[in-house]
Amino acid sequence: MPELSDATRGRILYGGDHNPEQWPEETWYEDVRLMKEAGVNSVTLGVFSWSRLEPRPGERDFGWLDRLMDLMHAHGVGVVLATPTASPPPWLGRLHPDTLPRDEDGRTESWGGRQHFSHSSAVYRRHAAEITEALATRYAGHPALILWHLNNEYCTYDHGDEAAARFRDWLRVRYGTLDALNTAWGTAFWSQTYGDWEEILPARRTHYLKNPAQVLDFRRFTSDMLLECFTAERDIVRRHTPHIPVTTNFMPLFFGQDGWRWAEEEDVVSVDLYPDPRDPLAAQRGALVQDLTRSQARGPWALMEQATGAVTFRDVNHPKPRGLTRLWSLQAVARGADAVCYFQWRQSRQGAEKFHSAMLGHAGPEGRGFQEVKRLGADLATIGPETAGRPVRADIAVLHDWHAWWASAHQARSSARIDHADILTAWHRALWEAHLTTDFAHPAHDLTAYRMVVVPQLHALDDTAVDNLLGYVAQGGTLVCGFRTGVTDQDDRVRPGAMDARLRALFGIRTLHEWWPLEEGESAHCEGFDGTLWSEEIEPDGTAAETVPYRGGELDGLPALLRKGTAWYFSTLPAPGALRGLLTRIAAGAGVRPVLAGLPAEVEAVRRGDLLFLLHHGRDPVTVEVPGSHRDLLTGVLVTDRVTLGRHGAAVLAP
Amino acid sequence: MPELSDATRGRILYGGDHNPEQWPEETWYEDVRLMKEAGVNSVTLGVFSWSRLEPRPGERDFGWLDRLMDLMHAHGVGVVLATPTASPPPWLGRLHPDTLPRDEDGRTESWGGRQHFSHSSAVYRRHAAEITEALATRYAGHPALILWHLNNEYCTYDHGDEAAARFRDWLRVRYGTLDALNTAWGTAFWSQTYGDWEEILPARRTHYLKNPAQVLDFRRFTSDMLLECFTAERDIVRRHTPHIPVTTNFMPLFFGQDGWRWAEEEDVVSVDLYPDPRDPLAAQRGALVQDLTRSQARGPWALMEQATGAVTFRDVNHPKPRGLTRLWSLQAVARGADAVCYFQWRQSRQGAEKFHSAMLGHAGPEGRGFQEVKRLGADLATIGPETAGRPVRADIAVLHDWHAWWASAHQARSSARIDHADILTAWHRALWEAHLTTDFAHPAHDLTAYRMVVVPQLHALDDTAVDNLLGYVAQGGTLVCGFRTGVTDQDDRVRPGAMDARLRALFGIRTLHEWWPLEEGESAHCEGFDGTLWSEEIEPDGTAAETVPYRGGELDGLPALLRKGTAWYFSTLPAPGALRGLLTRIAAGAGVRPVLAGLPAEVEAVRRGDLLFLLHHGRDPVTVEVPGSHRDLLTGVLVTDRVTLGRHGAAVLAP
Amino acid sequence: MPELSDATRGRILYGGDHNPEQWPEETWYEDVRLMKEAGVNSVTLGVFSWSRLEPRPGERDFGWLDRLMDLMHAHGVGVVLATPTASPPPWLGRLHPDTLPRDEDGRTESWGGRQHFSHSSAVYRRHAAEITEALATRYAGHPALILWHLNNEYCTYDHGDEAAARFRDWLRVRYGTLDALNTAWGTAFWSQTYGDWEEILPARRTHYLKNPAQVLDFRRFTSDMLLECFTAERDIVRRHTPHIPVTTNFMPLFFGQDGWRWAEEEDVVSVDLYPDPRDPLAAQRGALVQDLTRSQARGPWALMEQATGAVTFRDVNHPKPRGLTRLWSLQAVARGADAVCYFQWRQSRQGAEKFHSAMLGHAGPEGRGFQEVKRLGADLATIGPETAGRPVRADIAVLHDWHAWWASAHQARSSARIDHADILTAWHRALWEAHLTTDFAHPAHDLTAYRMVVVPQLHALDDTAVDNLLGYVAQGGTLVCGFRTGVTDQDDRVRPGAMDARLRALFGIRTLHEWWPLEEGESAHCEGFDGTLWSEEIEPDGTAAETVPYRGGELDGLPALLRKGTAWYFSTLPAPGALRGLLTRIAAGAGVRPVLAGLPAEVEAVRRGDLLFLLHHGRDPVTVEVPGSHRDLLTGVLVTDRVTLGRHGAAVLAP
Repeated sequence: MPELSDATRGRILYGGDHNPEQWPEETWYEDVRLMKEAGVNSVTLGVFSWSRLEPRPGERDFGWLDRLMDLMHAHGVGVVLATPTASPPPWLGRLHPDTLPRDEDGRTESWGGRQHFSHSSAVYRRHAAEITEALATRYAGHPALILWHLNNEYCTYDHGDEAAARFRDWLRVRYGTLDALNTAWGTAFWSQTYGDWEEILPARRTHYLKNPAQVLDFRRFTSDMLLECFTAERDIVRRHTPHIPVTTNFMPLFFGQDGWRWAEEEDVVSVDLYPDPRDPLAAQRGALVQDLTRSQARGPWALMEQATGAVTFRDVNHPKPRGLTRLWSLQAVARGADAVCYFQWRQSRQGAEKFHSAMLGHAGPEGRGFQEVKRLGADLATIGPETAGRPVRADIAVLHDWHAWWASAHQARSSARIDHADILTAWHRALWEAHLTTDFAHPAHDLTAYRMVVVPQLHALDDTAVDNLLGYVAQGGTLVCGFRTGVTDQDDRVRPGAMDARLRALFGIRTLHEWWPLEEGESAHCEGFDGTLWSEEIEPDGTAAETVPYRGGELDGLPALLRKGTAWYFSTLPAPGALRGLLTRIAAGAGVRPVLAGLPAEVEAVRRGDLLFLLHHGRDPVTVEVPGSHRDLLTGVLVTDRVTLGRHGAAVLAP
Repeated sequence: MPELSDATRGRILYGGDHNPEQWPEETWYEDVRLMKEAGVNSVTLGVFSWSRLEPRPGERDFGWLDRLMDLMHAHGVGVVLATPTASPPPWLGRLHPDTLPRDEDGRTESWGGRQHFSHSSAVYRRHAAEITEALATRYAGHPALILWHLNNEYCTYDHGDEAAARFRDWLRVRYGTLDALNTAWGTAFWSQTYGDWEEILPARRTHYLKNPAQVLDFRRFTSDMLLECFTAERDIVRRHTPHIPVTTNFMPLFFGQDGWRWAEEEDVVSVDLYPDPRDPLAAQRGALVQDLTRSQARGPWALMEQATGAVTFRDVNHPKPRGLTRLWSLQAVARGADAVCYFQWRQSRQGAEKFHSAMLGHAGPEGRGFQEVKRLGADLATIGPETAGRPVRADIAVLHDWHAWWASAHQARSSARIDHADILTAWHRALWEAHLTTDFAHPAHDLTAYRMVVVPQLHALDDTAVDNLLGYVAQGGTLVCGFRTGVTDQDDRVRPGAMDARLRALFGIRTLHEWWPLEEGESAHCEGFDGTLWSEEIEPDGTAAETVPYRGGELDGLPALLRKGTAWYFSTLPAPGALRGLLTRIAAGAGVRPVLAGLPAEVEAVRRGDLLFLLHHGRDPVTVEVPGSHRDLLTGVLVTDRVTLGRHGAAVLAP
Repeated sequence: MPELSDATRGRILYGGDHNPEQWPEETWYEDVRLMKEAGVNSVTLGVFSWSRLEPRPGERDFGWLDRLMDLMHAHGVGVVLATPTASPPPWLGRLHPDTLPRDEDGRTESWGGRQHFSHSSAVYRRHAAEITEALATRYAGHPALILWHLNNEYCTYDHGDEAAARFRDWLRVRYGTLDALNTAWGTAFWSQTYGDWEEILPARRTHYLKNPAQVLDFRRFTSDMLLECFTAERDIVRRHTPHIPVTTNFMPLFFGQDGWRWAEEEDVVSVDLYPDPRDPLAAQRGALVQDLTRSQARGPWALMEQATGAVTFRDVNHPKPRGLTRLWSLQAVARGADAVCYFQWRQSRQGAEKFHSAMLGHAGPEGRGFQEVKRLGADLATIGPETAGRPVRADIAVLHDWHAWWASAHQARSSARIDHADILTAWHRALWEAHLTTDFAHPAHDLTAYRMVVVPQLHALDDTAVDNLLGYVAQGGTLVCGFRTGVTDQDDRVRPGAMDARLRALFGIRTLHEWWPLEEGESAHCEGFDGTLWSEEIEPDGTAAETVPYRGGELDGLPALLRKGTAWYFSTLPAPGALRGLLTRIAAGAGVRPVLAGLPAEVEAVRRGDLLFLLHHGRDPVTVEVPGSHRDLLTGVLVTDRVTLGRHGAAVLAP
């Protein structure tokens, strides 16, 4: 199978989405000139061009794209060629209203925006396949083509009748018999037993709470249907261009796709990333997505979209202060990115995203944005050859599973304050602030390469995953496990004792009497720290080697944390500083040290291959101790024992 | 007619909903063993078993239920047998989509949850009658059967076409002619005059404000349609088992049913009660529902559902701290309950309520929950024989009427902060904190047995009710009336002067110039206290014997409270402590004293028959002065002059 | 064309909506008696009488209205006769469901409220025309008729199929060809290119962001369709009564109608005004609407609806404290109103607005409300002859354009905190507090009569408007322009540089690098004041004569305000006091002085003709210096050099 290196060819790809069909052709020549000036070596074409490529059913217009592909090639700019299937032309919805998605209330999503397609529509899929086939046929041999970009941010759902039929097909495959489905869904509760497959519906509007297993399977189904849309297109382009890798761009930590399953089907894993410049945790959130994407890719990955400045989907959309677009792009490279791309090259004058910033913004080539883009382009060209393709190594794995996330998100739950993504973020933040590099892993992955495994929360956990965790600890691995893990099995059926019995034994828990969720602003006082969000009334079985008790309140004296051997259980979420301290100590016990000792708080350090990236997230100059001599690839300067970084400064130190 | 005592037979019923169809049969034997251990003498079967009992239309499967009924009987556990009609099987909705309810926007509520039936659907009603008939036929003579439990928490609505037809039928009966309807609804406003019955619709989505009388009648109709569903089932089971009492479980202080009207149709009045353990007013809110239910029942009643610990319908769902499930159950008994039941016996491993606590929770027999259940079972068995069937006497009646509530809840009103239930709660709280036992009554009830009548708020009041209040005062009764009472008549037509003229005369009010609703956090300063929520610009007619004026602001010097003879009018809602003080003083004037003098604030005292219940809502031990000698039924210990109660402790003192 | 003076005939019209069809006829006689007592000389009849006038299709009942018209005439009360077309009778919706509007989700708005008509429905329009024709035919010669009031608060929309067809017609007229439409809408973005007119839909529900130009045109279309409904009725009544002026009542600063365009089609411009008595800025908000309405009317206008006390559409609806209804009515007269009317004369006992206050409220003739109404009636009768028809002169114009508002309101924008109406209000407030009288104007209006022009924000600005502004400055006018002006053109296409190049040159701006919107509670520190809401990263071109810089933060040292000649640019919104100070200074430079020097903060002063209105918004007595001798028309007293105003007092000083 082809891979990202077939596209990068020893460089870091730099560029962005390009929508020249929105501009007169004379602008195209200014574009390529400015791209060269900025060091752009890659553009993504055609993401939303379906109505241009096929203005009427079956009528194709490729001439403009031919000219663009040639123009890009002539200027040495590679093309990431997209299938335009994320936004069908208006004629498709008009001629085939059943291709339009319906929400749980039966409301139709019309054209006039984007992503108005039902993943289950056979008509949509046929039209998508035809335009994909046509594109692949035409450009299979084009020398500009370096990567396929299928669709865009797959995220739609459908509760309509065709989706209902596909859902039944999917369930037949999963369960075989109605009896098995009734058992898995627990339909004995509230008289929901199905006597006929045709009775089964998507998780449509109900009077009161929905069946959680049905909702869970409908989420699985939705992810799988979207994936079928992807693989159908992938198989077409692969037939034409077996040597060109294929990707689709994920949204960051996106709820709707089973990211592990999807990544397996891609040649290149890519992601879009839009942290809020005002978010004090923006850099950490970015690092999380980068670590997750690298882990999905099991190596280098592509940052497919980011913004040079402001976006428009927030309530208040802040621009990036000077230096931040470069810093965050270098952060992505540090964490394994071999492509640094933006949405988009030239800011649109019309359409729904006309105030979304671009490499070449409304302010034009003189704008601060473009000046920073040029500087970044030069930096990436400088460090590219020694960086691209290099691995990032981590000794710690953080476990994450979309199915557990989905299972935990049902409307009837113990606390609406418990959000899988928030908890994942809180634990990753503690590790990131401790300068401990982490991978992510699925709970059934082979974990033996890691010195320490962290489970922020895995509400649902099947027996294989439990086996895996137990085996990991049995082999001497250090496991740190957060609350509400192993509560349910693969069908979201509560395990006896509300926590898997083997996990309880692993941590020294006899009985989990009650969950005590905490209110906003409420803390559970523990010996030495405060817990947040959640606490538990646990009766230990006396086998734990170490416990940290709650202090005061109803849980006074009961264990908040338990350690048995190298297995830790956290029944509350320690406040950020406490969690960082605890994990630093446990990691040290497992033989895992921070990337660099004595790092200032605002400086992030990551090793990629034999390079050491230093990234300064603050504005005041700071000096970092780096024992020994290194060459800073960005400046070419020799660095001895210490390096000073200015506002949002970075260094890429080679031995 | 049979009554609750036919089911209790001198005991307090103790148990809960039981859904053994969710479990393998071997579990059933563990269930009965543990039930005996816990003192359970009653279970509710079949509440949501329709799809199990009738897996396909007309095809019945009763074998499992036969075995369960026999098993329960063999172990001396009575069965509250439910009709399963609150959740039709999937086949009903598939074969008859018109049985599904539609909301005001026309959105359909699908199966996959529960309560997806239109109260107006003839097809639904026919199927419900058939399964009810089948159940009644089969189990009429079964010795385990002690009580019928019809449907569950009737609460649905429908705005669809069949409901529209039924609404017209209902209106024809109510009004006879279109002219009468047009007059009652005031359709001259906004050109809404109906020229044909077929033009009349449920209160569907409108561009702007809906006709309030139409909305009011649609609420009345909805309550009546649900009641027709109930009485249809009741008449069937009554035909088969004239000796077995019938109930349906209300939700606490539920907006959707006319509780006075419904209670008249039941043999046993029962209610579900789920106070939030974190709510500082939880015990009072519980007492309110218990007092209301007792008043609806005019005697002993059944607590049909409560939770041993956490529920899942709140944002953050807190467990019950140690001792609370026992304390609150004893509170219910003190206030007249002869049945103390839970949802549910054994916690479900699947389905939408799998995290809702149970008597036998996920933690199993060793869990704290079950241990507390056993203790409570023992207590109830101890006090049952001397408690069951005994009356609770109150000298004060609080008036409440669902129609007045409905009328007050229209979208166009003077203040969205005025909520009928909140105001009812505020007044009941003042009386509860003053240790004054209260009944509830309908404004047309005979009130002569009460020394004092309190009207927190009755927005709409018909002439009969006004007659009743005037007659009560004329006979020497003490009346305390809150603001916004008697504003409209039975059709929600504003009375001249915005308050019934006879009521104004009763209190000494010449003119009600303006309502001055208060903002969140705003107070109306009065002489001696602060008013909340509301104030009024009143011109007195000079006949009041006593007034308490507003101080400062636009209303400076105008009367906040007026007393004329034994009739009091409160034009604002005094802050909690002030309201308590005022009502204590007025009650004393009416010859009503607290249950016990000198009670600590956290101790609730209630007399039931000749027993004195003392309930300690606090956590620190407290001593209560109880002059004389008593025997504490719970402990058997003789108590002289004082008793000490520990954390959430209780005493049941017999003379 | 007839005008307002044809209705007023030298008086100020005083009265309100009258709905006697809600009352027995004997009440009518009490009504006219009390109207005379209150000085009422005008009532509006028939606004919502369609179902009374035409109880069944084609069947007319005018007798009651004949009697009313005669009764009013007999008592010297003029009639503002309304067409009842804002609320079709139930039979229309039942017989023609397609006349009912559909929202963007496809949900139907039923009858049972009001305004349940689709502006695009041919059937609705036909029926509306017929009832209008019938009314005009019958009452054309009636001597009581003084003004036509068409429909009521036009505000509906429709996304249904007939609206879709009309939208396409409208677009064909606007764009001629699909190519032109595709270009204007920028459909190349997100594959939205239309290949057939039939593919075009109203702005219905989409999965993600809608096309902003489509949304903008749909708003334009909606305003135009409603206007077609108005002009269709206008043309009918004008045919019958060419001498009677025609109006429809606007809602204040209403988003849904292009107020400039609509005003051109009316003989009389009228507006409804309901400030919240609790809003500290209520008086200013009232003044804004009055100034805007006067500007739309280019002379005297009619205050068609206000409340004597509380309304019911807010969460908490406060009554008007004593004196306020008079003060605010006099304020309207001061700012050009020749009609002071209320909704409504007699408070309804039924219907959705039965708690909305009235001239004759539920409290009756003895109520405070009616007493104040009588006093106001006497005052208006006193000042009417010297006031009616007189002009209000302003030296400052504030620019406002509904199209710019609509364009700025798209869901994808830089900051959801930026609201056109709020910003308009903030600038008007600064001028109002500075006692500077202002007109409003459209950006293409002739501005040469003004010494100073203020542009709070005009997001979209076409070339003609830019020409106009440039020409105004070139001729020596003083222009003060707020941020986010001239960002887009008439199609909402972003102008290169994100701000019109000629405007940038006008203010001395080379490059607008970034917008820096501010969060709630965040300020941009500037030299001498704090900016709110927004800030900008501007690179000046060195031609500005004066700049005020940002201080601190990312924008430190960059210009916050720029002045070049007499053209000012404000890149942030100065805090209220600072904006007032800046505008006072700039106005002074332009030769514009406050109405009166040394005015207390709570006293508003306006000159109408040669009268000086002084309006005291405070409650404590205040003395105003008014050099010279004047006669106070309200009291007849001679005033020399100073006048003292009591609580909410007013003086109308004639030379």
